[in-house]
Amino acid sequence: MELKSFSSCSVSTSEVAHVGRSYSTLISSFRHKVGVRFSTHFQCRRDKAVISSVGQDNFAAETSSHRINGTNGSISRFYSTNLKLLDAFDDEYGGVVVHPDRLPSNPYTFASVLRLSLSQWKKMGKKGIWLKLPLDQSDLVPIAVKEGFQYHHAEPGYVMLTYWIPEGPSMLPANASHQVGVGGFVINDNNEVLVVQERHCSPTTLGLWKIPTGFILEAEEIYTGAVREVKEETGIDTEFVEVIAFRHAHNVAFEKSDLFFICMLRPLSSKIIVDDLEIAAAKV
Amino acid sequence: MELKSFSSCSVSTSEVAHVGRSYSTLISSFRHKVGVRFSTHFQCRRDKAVISSVGQDNFAAETSSHRINGTNGSISRFYSTNLKLLDAFDDEYGGVVVHPDRLPSNPYTFASVLRLSLSQWKKMGKKGIWLKLPLDQSDLVPIAVKEGFQYHHAEPGYVMLTYWIPEGPSMLPANASHQVGVGGFVINDNNEVLVVQERHCSPTTLGLWKIPTGFILEAEEIYTGAVREVKEETGIDTEFVEVIAFRHAHNVAFEKSDLFFICMLRPLSSKIIVDDLEIAAAKV
Repeated sequence: MELKSFSSCSVSTSEVAHVGRSYSTLISSFRHKVGVRFSTHFQCRRDKAVISSVGQDNFAAETSSHRINGTNGSISRFYSTNLKLLDAFDDEYGGVVVHPDRLPSNPYTFASVLRLSLSQWKKMGKKGIWLKLPLDQSDLVPIAVKEGFQYHHAEPGYVMLTYWIPEGPSMLPANASHQVGVGGFVINDNNEVLVVQERHCSPTTLGLWKIPTGFILEAEEIYTGAVREVKEETGIDTEFVEVIAFRHAHNVAFEKSDLFFICMLRPLSSKIIVDDLEIAAAKV
Repeated sequence: MELKSFSSCSVSTSEVAHVGRSYSTLISSFRHKVGVRFSTHFQCRRDKAVISSVGQDNFAAETSSHRINGTNGSISRFYSTNLKLLDAFDDEYGGVVVHPDRLPSNPYTFASVLRLSLSQWKKMGKKGIWLKLPLDQSDLVPIAVKEGFQYHHAEPGYVMLTYWIPEGPSMLPANASHQVGVGGFVINDNNEVLVVQERHCSPTTLGLWKIPTGFILEAEEIYTGAVREVKEETGIDTEFVEVIAFRHAHNVAFEKSDLFFICMLRPLSSKIIVDDLEIAAAKV
């Protein structure tokens, strides 16, 4: 047995990322190489990964070549121009990502080309199929579901559907599982703590004094979110000192889990300006 | 100024929950009162919250009374039996939650009843409308989108759509924003650390020794997840000691954020059994 060198860089932000159900160093090197931003899982160089170029507008008159990325990265003309597949590219895990900007606009065309594509991908031994349908092409959703696709996740402007080809349970990575909230524990030199009363709460908690809290914004740091929420709710400027506690709750909003971080913050101002929309009162 | 008592119970798991973009104590008292489990945001007592009882199977022959929850909780017969609205109930925030199990099965019926319902809800000054469409009723998705609904989130078996009635930006709470991973820092009495090589990784990281890592499962605790991942990947039994570090990364899978917790674990066994599916090698 030997002691392995285990430096902090081995688990740094840039290197530890998600692959399947595990974490690896795979993603970072691909992160900035593509224009199409599905997710870091499904990025690859489009010049090496085009399966077919059947686009939305030129489907009927498709004449361009259809390329496929071989296992050694070489490009072949395995597909003739008569094979009309969905415009897609390989992902790193034996799967296929359909290009969301080049879907056939006609539902009937989509239905036939989707069926043909699935048939071809099955023959090729592909695994997970990723189909992102924009909001304005929602008429394609029932067609995909009819072919066996399931929902994976959705954001306001699109829904992502997936199809797992191999036998057995899907090995595709799950969607986000948590919401993250922050609380600002603002304590001054007199050991006085900043507290608020929320405007909208249940009768049983009406009048309860609590620390300012809220959810962090998309891509926001925990310490930034805590400082922002305190400022928004009370008008108090603060600086982050440290995370003093966190708790993990399950089955909260939309049956997802919830992580809540309490940050100790040092006040930089003392004039309280209450946010009337969320807060009924604030004081130290 | 006075020092407020701020005990740990004020931010306990059961009491701190999500309301809009804030945290409050609102949710916990409603959590166990309903059979319909949309999410804790949208639970309310169905006997007080039925807006209409137009169901999937009895839509055409609907004869039952239509009740609405008044602001004082009383039941009125404001709606006549001729007004065919979607079966729904009020949420706590002035919104309406459509019952997913009682949707009209006929798309044409759904289209007309949805339009009528929206018109009625607008007149009533309702805010957010929540429409959960099961996978097997995906043919209703384009109809809802045509009426102005957007996607909110999706899980394999359903897609949730929302409609924000008031002017201005939607105040509806966002979907989950994070994935959570764990790493097991297993160190023995000789200061030797358990490390693995992942089987599936990029060429640049091939052969890298790292701690066992993975994503926590749905509703799994961080410490449980770390112990499980170490066991799965290496066969080593461990017990949780403490969280020694965490890091926050953004724009990772599906453009969501990622929290990664490193847990110090004490080994309880020493025989390494490698999981051939994920791991190429493991040693201490």
